[in-house]
Amino acid sequence: MFIQQLINKLGSDKVNVEDSVLIRHSHDESPHESVKPDVVVFPENRQDIEGILEIARSHEIPVTPYGIGSGLEGASIPIHKGISVNFKNMKQIIDFSPEDLTVTVQPGVTRVELNQYLQEYGLMFPIDPNTDASIGGMVATNASGTTGVRYGAMKDQILDLEVVLVDGTVIHTGTKARKSSSGYLVTNLFVGSEGTLGVFTEVTLKLYGIPEETIMARCTFDTLEMCAKAAQAISLKGIPILRLELIDQESIEEINRQNGYHFPEKHSLFLEFAGNKQIVKQEVEHVNHLLHELGCENWSVSNDPREQQELWRARKELSLGFVQEGMDEVGADVCVPVSKLSELLIYARKLIQDTGLRGGVWGHVGDGNFHTLVLFDPNVEGERELAESTNEALAKKAIEVGGTCTGEHGVGIGKIKYQEIEHGPAIKVMKGIKQLLDPYGILNPGKLF
Amino acid sequence: MFIQQLINKLGSDKVNVEDSVLIRHSHDESPHESVKPDVVVFPENRQDIEGILEIARSHEIPVTPYGIGSGLEGASIPIHKGISVNFKNMKQIIDFSPEDLTVTVQPGVTRVELNQYLQEYGLMFPIDPNTDASIGGMVATNASGTTGVRYGAMKDQILDLEVVLVDGTVIHTGTKARKSSSGYLVTNLFVGSEGTLGVFTEVTLKLYGIPEETIMARCTFDTLEMCAKAAQAISLKGIPILRLELIDQESIEEINRQNGYHFPEKHSLFLEFAGNKQIVKQEVEHVNHLLHELGCENWSVSNDPREQQELWRARKELSLGFVQEGMDEVGADVCVPVSKLSELLIYARKLIQDTGLRGGVWGHVGDGNFHTLVLFDPNVEGERELAESTNEALAKKAIEVGGTCTGEHGVGIGKIKYQEIEHGPAIKVMKGIKQLLDPYGILNPGKLF
Repeated sequence: MFIQQLINKLGSDKVNVEDSVLIRHSHDESPHESVKPDVVVFPENRQDIEGILEIARSHEIPVTPYGIGSGLEGASIPIHKGISVNFKNMKQIIDFSPEDLTVTVQPGVTRVELNQYLQEYGLMFPIDPNTDASIGGMVATNASGTTGVRYGAMKDQILDLEVVLVDGTVIHTGTKARKSSSGYLVTNLFVGSEGTLGVFTEVTLKLYGIPEETIMARCTFDTLEMCAKAAQAISLKGIPILRLELIDQESIEEINRQNGYHFPEKHSLFLEFAGNKQIVKQEVEHVNHLLHELGCENWSVSNDPREQQELWRARKELSLGFVQEGMDEVGADVCVPVSKLSELLIYARKLIQDTGLRGGVWGHVGDGNFHTLVLFDPNVEGERELAESTNEALAKKAIEVGGTCTGEHGVGIGKIKYQEIEHGPAIKVMKGIKQLLDPYGILNPGKLF
Repeated sequence: MFIQQLINKLGSDKVNVEDSVLIRHSHDESPHESVKPDVVVFPENRQDIEGILEIARSHEIPVTPYGIGSGLEGASIPIHKGISVNFKNMKQIIDFSPEDLTVTVQPGVTRVELNQYLQEYGLMFPIDPNTDASIGGMVATNASGTTGVRYGAMKDQILDLEVVLVDGTVIHTGTKARKSSSGYLVTNLFVGSEGTLGVFTEVTLKLYGIPEETIMARCTFDTLEMCAKAAQAISLKGIPILRLELIDQESIEEINRQNGYHFPEKHSLFLEFAGNKQIVKQEVEHVNHLLHELGCENWSVSNDPREQQELWRARKELSLGFVQEGMDEVGADVCVPVSKLSELLIYARKLIQDTGLRGGVWGHVGDGNFHTLVLFDPNVEGERELAESTNEALAKKAIEVGGTCTGEHGVGIGKIKYQEIEHGPAIKVMKGIKQLLDPYGILNPGKLF
């Protein structure tokens, strides 16, 4: 009955129950179990969202937002079925103010689409989660990625959200001013909330000038510890590096083997500098000097866009590089205080080695966030559990040393089990807020808690 | 009776009812009416705070935190009397990790004390609200100030808060990792909450290396609009300038007259660059070139610490410069999208001129935040209302163009009347959160709403 009401309210072209469509909305890129929604809706504007929530409310039907399905923790899987809300028809640029370095978009715009739009104005939006995610999805998971060392996470780049609450109230969480001390700062309550507190209809983002010059560098170190120390040294010097990625030796070997690259097969740092030409040149020299003092080898610099693309393609292909026909994988996403980074990297490497499984360690070491990927054969008994045990041990270790079980992927389904350990009594506050804003319990139920 | 209980619980040396002490805690630096608390307590640790809240809860006595009393909106005035909590004996550095660039402090440590402590490690905490405020007070108001253009506000510099909730629960809002997508991001809910949601007992802050080189510059422009455009141009170029302050001609005249300086008497920008020696030199040259293209005059650069100190002292003395025996003052604290800055600056200047009163306009124009100060004679009928009318018109205009009524001072008492206009239906969410976390309504009652 609610599906017919959705059709009446939105029009039949915005409501889909075809099995192929339901299947597409039953999973993301995580290994979590697929669940098909009852229906997928394709709203075009805030009025459509208000209509969807009105119907969902009156029938107490779950509502689960869906960006492009690139999530890694199952946040968009409608585990209690109901309505999957696909934002692909909400791609409007609502307000663009180059003089303010701000843009207001509907949540369906993807990161690459936004940057294509901005390019001719010499501007960019810097957060890069290594996939062409929707802005709404990036807000919902507090995404970050390779540029996090300079630009932080989504929470640091949002001035205002328009949110439709479950009771139909439309709120703005901020203003278009760069800062404010007015009211409670509720914007970040919604950032990372994975659709559990309201549905986003507009996102106002900070923008930045496209840097005049971009210089890429890579180098190797003998040990993971030296890599971690090098990352630390750069941040201690306050150099506003754009990207600072660690890739362990095993992953470099994998990239070379799978994709025909010839990177030196040692623990490596990939670095990117961006800004004014003269300033960037100084930064590169400064870091070059610094890293050589810390024992780096194979230092290689390029400002050739083709070479740079190749290098970052190699980095992007990393998780794909490990993928193998018939094999499944699990991955971790811990973030720890930088002083604990080498300890945790070595711990992660050892965890993987002890399983006898293939896997790699890499990450955005500038901010202490790193990932593992462990391959297992789903047909060999015990291998999944073995692979997952590395994840669990690493997440708990990260929390133990003052870090978090998820630096950027979000909680979704997979990290629920660590929420009590990580947040302790603060969970009570979080659950109170959930209850306050979703008394019906219909907004992406079964996630986060 | 509750005062005796406080003495029994904390010891008599931590509880004070002397009139001089009550008077000192009855006001801050704002013109809002003084109200004496019933008692002032001087806790030393979390256990003391827990004890205070237990007693306050059982008698439903208001609890109002007090930092150093430098607030500008009356947030620490105990308008419903009760307990004023002074943090001057909570100055411990609880955890300092130079390798992580983090420090955890009790809220009573002041900004200058913290920087003195950090200095020998070559580190600093950059937020500078132009007074030696306590860290707790700075968290409570989401303070920012002259370095906001590079470092944002307090909300951008906090990794974790330990908060004692009104029911006695002790929570941590974050971790010591640089980023996280775990749970709801509740840290910023408490930042800027002015003691209305819980009492802070620990604050974990991000730190930065003391820059190798600091270069100061100043220059003048013919119009306020040219100043605003220049500020905009610098941010569009992505130059990580440390300070970028506008001081209008009238204020420069005032500074010269009161303090014997000889600054060129035109609308001025005061700039500060900080970082690696070579990089900063490049930045200064870059900005010099840029500003001259935009018509700046009287460009003057200095890396002499004494000259720099003089310049920033002049800036700091600005609000004092206007102070005059027997005269009172009111000030605004709006923040607007940078594209609206010149319009609002001109509007503010005109508002003041139309009153016939003396006053100035200055601010942190890099992020769109600026202040006015209007002097009035409290003994001349109608002058207070006239002065206050400029504040009101400016706050409303700021909200109208997409900005905020308070960029950094907070709501306290003075900005309550703009909350509905600025936040609209989001007020309902904010009030819901207040009700959730303070069902007794005893945490700094009468503020924010």
